[in-house]
Parts: sequence; C-alpha cells; structure tokens
Amino acid sequence: MRAVRVVGYHQDLQMVEIDEPTVQGPLDVIVKIGAAGVCRTDLHILEGQWEAKSGVQLPYTIGHENAGWVHAVGDAVTNVAVGDKVILHPLVTCGLCRACRLGDDVHCENNQFPGINTDGGYAEYLRTSARSCVKLDDSLEPADVAALADAGLTAQHACAKAARLLRPGDVCAVIGAGGLGHIGIQCMKAMSSATLVVVDRNPEALALAKEIGADHTVLADGNHVEAVREFSGGAGVAAVLDFVGEGGATAEGVAMLRNAGNYYVIGYGENIDVPTIDVISTEINFIGNLVGSYTDLQDLMTLAAQGKVKLHTAQYKLDDFQQAIDDLDAGKVRGRAILIP
Amino acid sequence: MRAVRVVGYHQDLQMVEIDEPTVQGPLDVIVKIGAAGVCRTDLHILEGQWEAKSGVQLPYTIGHENAGWVHAVGDAVTNVAVGDKVILHPLVTCGLCRACRLGDDVHCENNQFPGINTDGGYAEYLRTSARSCVKLDDSLEPADVAALADAGLTAQHACAKAARLLRPGDVCAVIGAGGLGHIGIQCMKAMSSATLVVVDRNPEALALAKEIGADHTVLADGNHVEAVREFSGGAGVAAVLDFVGEGGATAEGVAMLRNAGNYYVIGYGENIDVPTIDVISTEINFIGNLVGSYTDLQDLMTLAAQGKVKLHTAQYKLDDFQQAIDDLDAGKVRGRAILIP
Amino acid sequence: MRAVRVVGYHQDLQMVEIDEPTVQGPLDVIVKIGAAGVCRTDLHILEGQWEAKSGVQLPYTIGHENAGWVHAVGDAVTNVAVGDKVILHPLVTCGLCRACRLGDDVHCENNQFPGINTDGGYAEYLRTSARSCVKLDDSLEPADVAALADAGLTAQHACAKAARLLRPGDVCAVIGAGGLGHIGIQCMKAMSSATLVVVDRNPEALALAKEIGADHTVLADGNHVEAVREFSGGAGVAAVLDFVGEGGATAEGVAMLRNAGNYYVIGYGENIDVPTIDVISTEINFIGNLVGSYTDLQDLMTLAAQGKVKLHTAQYKLDDFQQAIDDLDAGKVRGRAILIP
Amino acid sequence: MRAVRVVGYHQDLQMVEIDEPTVQGPLDVIVKIGAAGVCRTDLHILEGQWEAKSGVQLPYTIGHENAGWVHAVGDAVTNVAVGDKVILHPLVTCGLCRACRLGDDVHCENNQFPGINTDGGYAEYLRTSARSCVKLDDSLEPADVAALADAGLTAQHACAKAARLLRPGDVCAVIGAGGLGHIGIQCMKAMSSATLVVVDRNPEALALAKEIGADHTVLADGNHVEAVREFSGGAGVAAVLDFVGEGGATAEGVAMLRNAGNYYVIGYGENIDVPTIDVISTEINFIGNLVGSYTDLQDLMTLAAQGKVKLHTAQYKLDDFQQAIDDLDAGKVRGRAILIP
Repeated sequence: MRAVRVVGYHQDLQMVEIDEPTVQGPLDVIVKIGAAGVCRTDLHILEGQWEAKSGVQLPYTIGHENAGWVHAVGDAVTNVAVGDKVILHPLVTCGLCRACRLGDDVHCENNQFPGINTDGGYAEYLRTSARSCVKLDDSLEPADVAALADAGLTAQHACAKAARLLRPGDVCAVIGAGGLGHIGIQCMKAMSSATLVVVDRNPEALALAKEIGADHTVLADGNHVEAVREFSGGAGVAAVLDFVGEGGATAEGVAMLRNAGNYYVIGYGENIDVPTIDVISTEINFIGNLVGSYTDLQDLMTLAAQGKVKLHTAQYKLDDFQQAIDDLDAGKVRGRAILIP
Repeated sequence: MRAVRVVGYHQDLQMVEIDEPTVQGPLDVIVKIGAAGVCRTDLHILEGQWEAKSGVQLPYTIGHENAGWVHAVGDAVTNVAVGDKVILHPLVTCGLCRACRLGDDVHCENNQFPGINTDGGYAEYLRTSARSCVKLDDSLEPADVAALADAGLTAQHACAKAARLLRPGDVCAVIGAGGLGHIGIQCMKAMSSATLVVVDRNPEALALAKEIGADHTVLADGNHVEAVREFSGGAGVAAVLDFVGEGGATAEGVAMLRNAGNYYVIGYGENIDVPTIDVISTEINFIGNLVGSYTDLQDLMTLAAQGKVKLHTAQYKLDDFQQAIDDLDAGKVRGRAILIP
Repeated sequence: MRAVRVVGYHQDLQMVEIDEPTVQGPLDVIVKIGAAGVCRTDLHILEGQWEAKSGVQLPYTIGHENAGWVHAVGDAVTNVAVGDKVILHPLVTCGLCRACRLGDDVHCENNQFPGINTDGGYAEYLRTSARSCVKLDDSLEPADVAALADAGLTAQHACAKAARLLRPGDVCAVIGAGGLGHIGIQCMKAMSSATLVVVDRNPEALALAKEIGADHTVLADGNHVEAVREFSGGAGVAAVLDFVGEGGATAEGVAMLRNAGNYYVIGYGENIDVPTIDVISTEINFIGNLVGSYTDLQDLMTLAAQGKVKLHTAQYKLDDFQQAIDDLDAGKVRGRAILIP
Repeated sequence: MRAVRVVGYHQDLQMVEIDEPTVQGPLDVIVKIGAAGVCRTDLHILEGQWEAKSGVQLPYTIGHENAGWVHAVGDAVTNVAVGDKVILHPLVTCGLCRACRLGDDVHCENNQFPGINTDGGYAEYLRTSARSCVKLDDSLEPADVAALADAGLTAQHACAKAARLLRPGDVCAVIGAGGLGHIGIQCMKAMSSATLVVVDRNPEALALAKEIGADHTVLADGNHVEAVREFSGGAGVAAVLDFVGEGGATAEGVAMLRNAGNYYVIGYGENIDVPTIDVISTEINFIGNLVGSYTDLQDLMTLAAQGKVKLHTAQYKLDDFQQAIDDLDAGKVRGRAILIP
C-alpha cells in the first residue's frame, strides 16, 4: 500500500510502498483510511520537536487524526465489525491499568500514539485497537470528522469540564477562534448556558465565531483584557478557555479572570508565570487539558451527528500530501486540511 | 480599653488607651477578646508590605486571629447571645452579594478584614458581625483555638478540597510541616484515607509530623523529589499540598506530581513558572487556596472539639505583645504565639 | 390597602382593606406588588390541605409568587433601593443558620413563607426581606416573571441538578408538559445537551413542547414507557424529570430509566413504591426537589432576560381575583394566571 | 478437579469431579482458588430465588467471592502473571461498552457473574478474565480477603459515595452492624470524618461496632429513630447507610434523615414506600448501591493492606462445604464463612 512516511528530521515526507498492516493481537483492528487530518503537530514532527519525546524509530508513517472503515478485526473484537464506519481515538490504550479502569484512558500507562510513536494514518490502512474505534452515525462520513479526532477532541474535553461548572449568567472568555477555538465555541454552545466572549486578533475569525455561537466578540487590539472584563460587569470572567497559550495569552487571560475563576490551559507555547500570592489572593485555578477520553470522543461524535459541531475542511488527495503540508505551513488552509487516500 | 496599634510602618506597635467599640449596626457583635493569635502577617504589616493592598488609615488596632466571649449584640443578631464563647471568622461579610449567597463568603464583594483594614483583636474588645461568630463547643477555650481562625482555616479549606478527590492508596505530598502544614496534616488525617508523605527541611518538624499522622516523612535534602515519588511507586503523587510556596518549593512540588495530579497552592512567595506544554501533556491542575468560608471554620471547630486537630500555643499577656512579636521574628516561638488580654 | 385574604377554609377568599405593611426590622423590604401568580397551591390552601402544615393564623393574605417594585427598605438593606424592579424568592430566610451559610437557603432553619404562613402578595404591598429580592433586568417586567417565583424556580432547580450530570447523547425524559414541565423543557434546553423526550396526555401540550425545545414527544397512551425507551436505544433513559408525581407517573417513570439512572421527583401526589431489590440491582437514584435557592432564582431571571425561558400568562386585575381562581379551578387558564393590583 | 455444584433447586449441593477450566480467550485467566466466601445469596440460589433472574443452566459450580493464585493466562493478559496472588472482582466485564469505558464496569452491558450465571469458585480452579483480577499486597492472603469480593465491595462502594459528601460534624446513621455493616463502619472510619451512629437489634453486634469505629451505638428497641435523631441535635442525620432494607428499616431510616439528607439503599427485601410530597418537602434523596467497580475493589484491598478493614472469618475445608452451608443457615457462623480447597 501507499504510505507517507517520516524518513528523517528536517527532510520532506516521502510516499513509499509498504506492506499492509495485519491483525497481530486479539483486539487489533485494521482500518481502511477514509480521511486523515493534517495537523500543525505534523510540521513540528518534521522539525524534530518530537524526536526525543516520542523516541520513534524512523522511517514511520505519520498522521494522527484518522477515520475510515473497519477492514479486519482480531479474535476478541466485539464492538465493531468489518465494514463499520469509524473514527479513531488517537491513543491505543491497554484497558487494564488503573487509569483505563477509571475511564481516564488518556493517562493509560501503556499507551501508543499512532502517527507520533508508531505508524499512523497517512496511508491506505492503519492498525489500531478495538478500544480506539468509535462507530460513526449513518449521517457522518470519515472525511467530515477525521480532523476532530485529536484537536477537536481536546476542545470537547476542556469544554465539557468548563460546562459542568458554569451557570446561567456566568461569562466564559474564549481566547483564540482558530481551529480548536472554533470547535470549542460550538461545544460550549451545545453544553452550557454561559455567555461566550471570544477574543482573536483576526476580524474574520471573530465574524465566524459570531456566526457559530459567540455572544460577544473582542478584537485583540491591546484593550481586549478590559473589554472582556466589561462584559462581566467589571468583576472578571468565571472561566477562560485558552486555545492559544503563547504570545502573552496566559498573562492576559489571567487578568480577565474574576476571583475564584478557572483558567483552562489548552493551547501551549509560553510559560504560565504567576506570583503565588496572586493565585491565593484571588483563589484562581489552572486546569490542564490533554486530548479527551474515548467517551469524550463518543460525545463529540454525538454532537457532530446532531449537527451541533461542524468542521470546515479542505480536501487533498493522499498523493498531494506535500501540497497540503505546504499550504498548512503557508497559512493557506481554510478550516482543516485532510488527506483522502 | 487597652489596644495595640500600628502607628506607622517600620515602627514598633504601641499600646494605647482607646474607647471600647460599640454596636452600630443591627448585625454588629462586640466580642471581649479571650485570645488573639500573633501571625507572621503581623510582621509583614509592620514592614509596610500590606500598606497599598489594605489602604488602612493609621493608627489602627492589629490582630486578625481572634476568639473570646460575646459582650454585646445588635438588634438583628439571633445566632449568638451575650456570654457565648466564640471564634471569629477573619472576614466581616455582607451576606447579600452573589458570593455570600452561594456560601462562598470569602469572596464577598463588600468584605472587611479586622486587623488588616479595620480594627482587630490585639485589644480588650473587638467589633465584628454576627455573620463572623462561630460558637465554641463547651470543651474548647478561646486560648486553644484563636490561632486557628486564619492560618488553620486556610489549611482546613485546602485539605477539604483535596480530601474530596483522594481515594485509598492515593499519595498526597505535604510540603512544609510548620504552622499551617502541622494543622493540614491533622485535617487530612481526619478527612481522608490518602497516604501522607510530609516533606520539610527540619528533622524536628518531621518528627512532630509523624506523631500527628504523617505516614511517611522525607527530609528536604536535595533528593526529596525522588524520595517522594518513590512512595507513589515512581508514578508521582496524586496531590501536593504546598504550605511553603517559596525557595523552589513549587518547581519541586510540580516534579512530584503524577499525571492528572492536583497542586494545591497555599503558601506563597515565589512564582508558579511552568511551561504550558508541561501543564497540558501531564494534564495537571493548580488550585488556589485562600482562607476558608464560615462553614469551613465550623468544620474546623468540630474537628478541634473532637480532639482531631490540636494546636501547640505559647501564651503571652497582651501587655507583653512586644515580646511575642520579637520571639516570633527571632524564630523562638514553639507552635503559635497568642496574646491574652 | 386592598388585600385578598383567607378568612376560613372551604370559604371564598375576601378582598378587604387593611393597613399597608411597614418596615420593622433592619433587613425588611416593602414591595409594591406588580404581579402575583395564581397557583394551584392557592386552591389547596382554601381546601384546608395546608392548615396543619402551615399553622397560619386566619385571616391572612394569600399569594406566594410575587414581583414588583421596592417601596421602602430597612436600615441594613444594601442590595436594593427604593424604585428597583424585583422578583421575590418565595422564602424569607435568616442568613445565619448553617443551611443559609452553605448557600442552601431553602433549608433555612428559621424561614417564613409569605402567602403560606404569613401575609403574601394578593395585595398592593408586601413585606419581605432584602435576602428575598432579586433585581430584574431592564428588559423584564414584574408581570412577565412573577409566576416564575415558585413553580418556575422549582423547575429550574431540578433541571440544574440534572443538567450537571447529563452528557451529549444522554436521553432525558420529561413527564408532564404543563406549567412546570413547560418551564423545565426551556431550562434543560438552555443548560444541557441531552436529548429531551417529553411525555404528556395532552397533544396540545406536546405540540407546545416541540415548539419550545423538545427533541421528541410521546403521547401518554399506554404504550409510552416503551416508546420512551426506544428513543434511548432500548436501554432506558439517563434521567427522568417527573413534573407529575401522581396517577401512576412514578411507576412508569421508573420503568423508563436505564441502569444507574436518576429519577428527579418534582410533581407530587402518589407514593414512590419500589422494591429495594430493584433499586439496588439497577442502581438507580431518586432525587427530591424543593423550590430553588436564591441563586437559582438569579439564574432563572438570567435565562428569562436572555429570552431562553418564556412564560405564557393570563392577566387579571386584582379586583377580579375570584374570576382567576375560578378559571384556574375550571382548567380554563392558558399558561399561568397572574393578578395585577 | 473437585467442584461443588448446584444440581437442582431445593436440593443439597453436590461435590463432583469435573474437568479443570482452561484458557479459551485471550484475556482469560485460570485461578487456583485459595478461598471462596460462603454467602447468604448461596442459600437463596438453592431456594430457587435466582432461577429466573440468572437463567443459569444446571448443573453449575456455585461461589461468587473468590481469591487465589493465577494458574494460567491467555495471550493478551498483561496485568497479572502465573503465580500472582489475586482477589477476583465478582463480574467478568467486556471492557468495550460505554459503561466499561466510563469506569462504571458494574453496569457492563455484556457481563457474566461466576457463581451466579456461570461456573464459580467452590472448586479447585475457576476461569475468569484479566479484567477481574486485582493483585494482592504481599501482606494479604486469599483466605483473609475472599469474603470481601462481593459483600465487602458493596459496602465499600456505598461508603465511598457517602464519604465524598459528608463533612466534619455531619452525622451518618448505619443501620445494621452485621456482615456488610461491619465492613461499612470500617470503610467510613477510614474515608470520612463524619460521626457514625450504628443501629442494630443485637447488643453484641453493637459492642463490636464500637470497637471498630462507631462513635455511638443505638439498640433497635423501638425508640431508636428518636435516639438516632438526638445524636444529630434533633435535626436528623445527613446520611443513612441502610445495610438491612427489610423489617421496617427503610421507613425508620427515612424518619432519621434531616432535610436534604441522603438515604443509601444497600440491604434489600422490602419496598421503599414514601409519599412524593415528603420526598420533595424534605428534599431527600435515595441512592441505590450495587457491588462496587474494579477500582473500588482495588481501594478496598488497599484499605485491607493498610489494616484499616479487617474481616473475621470461619474457615472450612472445601470438602466440608455442607457444614459451612448448614452453619450459615443456622446462624452459627461468627464473621464470614470461607471454604479452603
């Protein structure tokens, strides 16, 4: 089969012909890829930023946002059958460690991450686990949802935590209305009654935010902290969902918070750097957010099937992977780029 | 009456004769002071560290950890009567704002803080509110508990949050077995089944920690992060209660945490300075902790009455306030110093 | 002033001229009534059903769903001022007991209930407490919201509990689309992503339910338990909001539940009568619901101001109180009847 | 191997020689039984009470509280190895359904229950799943803990729910200090600061309760409801843990509760039969409790290894199973009877 692989850091990806993956364990599932999301992390991998963290052996197949059809299953697989339309949770988890048994499978002690530390989905077929397969509703196609498998799932996960605590009239600031923020706004709208104030540097992103559910938008023009606070009557907002995490976003976000507010760290890049005396005197919390669990992905697919979360995509043929990568790098992609084998 | 007052920053306190406070509002309560805790914050006030924050007009009476007997009450007071033995919540709150109505009175929009921004308890009498009075059990005396009114209440508040999430077998690291940590260990022991690993630089503090409930103790000798992690099987601890917050404690504390762990910020001094990528990849949380609410103080007094939380005190006569201050400053006080009028 | 009073059980209400109430305590507020809801409980009071429970001394003024304008305030009132537009929480609470301090003021140990056990709002003026006044948004008028003060608040309170636990894809059955259910549907829609299946005997009520947010409706025709279960794929629903509580509703509702489901008891009349072996083998919970707290009423007014909760009302002049009572008794009122002085 | 089997209802169990179970699926684990608890449910099975519910095909091997050593494992088993000392969660669960993925494996859609609907542990060997094996601490032996696998786990599960909500000073009534109650008291003591008031008809059971942690004991002599309420200052208790569920216990337990209290249904037999008007006017909740999850069993084993939960046992040889059954039926067993192959 064709597969797009990392052959060296600071080098272009290469499409090569390799053997199709086969079932090796009882819970293995082979998925015929229907679509694979092209993510900024893929660029970072090529730049070598993940070399030490992942420890992956080169060459390997890249691509960690995958959806498609079940092609073959191991002996112990009971939740999906050949032909089923599925989206794949980005992690392959063991199901037996304490974290898995608590439903917190993202912290599985024995996880693998296809596309990061083992073969991923820029290919015709992918090997994953029954534990990673979420069946898709009839109304959804792999190409519609593949790019929700990682970035969207992270947004859903953080939003679900925030929504559980917010009450009518609480104001929630959303920093960043790009790829993740744009999903987050839709998730919050579906799950919460909070008032959403969305902040971005890009007026077009704000216009889209308004269209998909933002109650108010604020251009990040230097006066935005004060502008956000005004929407909460001056007291500060109950929650900040920070989808940016760099370029000064965290200091600004903290300045937006009210006493006893919650800061959801989602985007990353810079440091959180806050005096402990401020943390205690305002009694604020910082909440870390990794990708969501398997059940979070089920929930996100439910919202997608209900039409509450939609994703704009730009489709490329798998053979045109280089174009997709180049377009992403050049900031030319509207919505999320996906590869179709 | 006699009152010990701040007459200027970088000057000694002075005992002067002033009028007794009187009931002025319907919820006012005049308390005859039985004991007033001497707190490190009192030293910081004299150094001018609170001048800008509190905006208090000099001279005023210092002392924010107070207990005694009800001496007079306003028309609308129904929860205490003259003669009742009481400990005072450190804040005077309005009872009408949203925070008060949610039971989160510490974030009252209209609060006052006797001893910080209005007259406190280094005196024979103090004016407070019915909303700040917690009746004491017959078995407790003002001198036993006064010093729990602020520092102890902060420890109880943070521990109650941590205890709600910890399960048997979870390991909780306690950084600092001094004044607050020593109360915190007892609170955790009463409310939680978690395994407590206590870290301190002082072997004597660790010996006391062991006596009052620490399951394990670790001397902060440079290898303590690794030593703490070993008590959790190498994975890191589920919670850190940081009663220090300076001298590198936060970086060390974060290094002790397991994935999805909670860091309770209680002591303060340095900055939390952590890369957002670490916050999200480990999915840890930082939880701010101010003093507890009125109901937290009720809970702490219940634990004290049940003999589950005990405080070592060094008593001074109110007239000897300077000696108490000097001893505290010189590190000569065992337990907590209190003034008895 | 004119006031409509209970002068005896099994007798008609009488309008009489009595003195206006005056400020007597520091937190007292005199409200000029703008609208008073006419509730089925008022009929039950006249039938003597509340005689023993309330122990009220006759004659007294009836009416427990009140909104209007602040007319006079006691010395200690700081949260509202003369002229403010307000809705009144149905209870007058002490603010000092443990329940009040926890934010759970509905369980105040010293509460009064105007219209039930002390003078209510079928009158020109009413005495209440500052603690019961919620200021209205400019966009809301007393006549729009008065009838939300008790019945609507109960619905909001139960829905807020349910919404906190429900996740996308969870199915929630709403039994009864009448006065309370109709508010409940709107509250759920605003605060939750759950799929709402509404059950009622009245096709018109179901048509309205669909209009205001029900995802599915089921006519209570004898096959409705099975019909509801089908909307949850046969496994049963995650939550039942029972706004009926009589005529067999509870047994049917329990039969709709999935394992580990929650049954919210709101309407009342019959007994919950379930074998303990069924409770444990399915591990279901029954959750009691009284009227909401003060902050729940704030939240409901926020939803009303945002246009998310709307109430159909039929207005009567206070002088026409007998007509309103008669129409309610005869089932002739569309929406909720209110009296305008 | 020897196995004790149900050969017909209303007949004695029979020991027969059957084939040892073998590994058939990748997650199968064969356990050499070290001890099997003899439970009152075993008597009920013989009386035919479970015939319809379980639908089990006779003959089959009885015994659902099992511990021992791993004897053989399937290909995909990674969490235990041959020779490991283990206690078995009573359910064999699929790990793939929504409930399993949420950590709520007790509600697995595809579960089996060895000893109830498939071969259990009154035998030399048992087939179970890797998902049911909890490794024992070195300090624990199968004979010490086997009888905690079902009854004890139910107690732990209910107590963990109760402990999460109880605060210092809250009073918790424990109805029944027998097999389950006796474990429950120890679990509550380890995990909660609540005041425990234990009610039983048997003075000896109360004496033991006092020894293992009850703060107060009340003889069920007809005045016990009032006696329990007095320990809560007359207002009623915050929680009732009902380990009895028959003989009038539920009505009495409800009468013990304070407003907004929680009733934990654990024992079973009679109906909960309460007017909905009482449920809403006091706003109480009924919380169903089935056996605990896998992680609850891990927690219980942690408490056992820490010496916080101890079980009195009466050991019988497997060959003497009839004696054990007869003694249990005659009320002659002190603590819990276990069979040792």
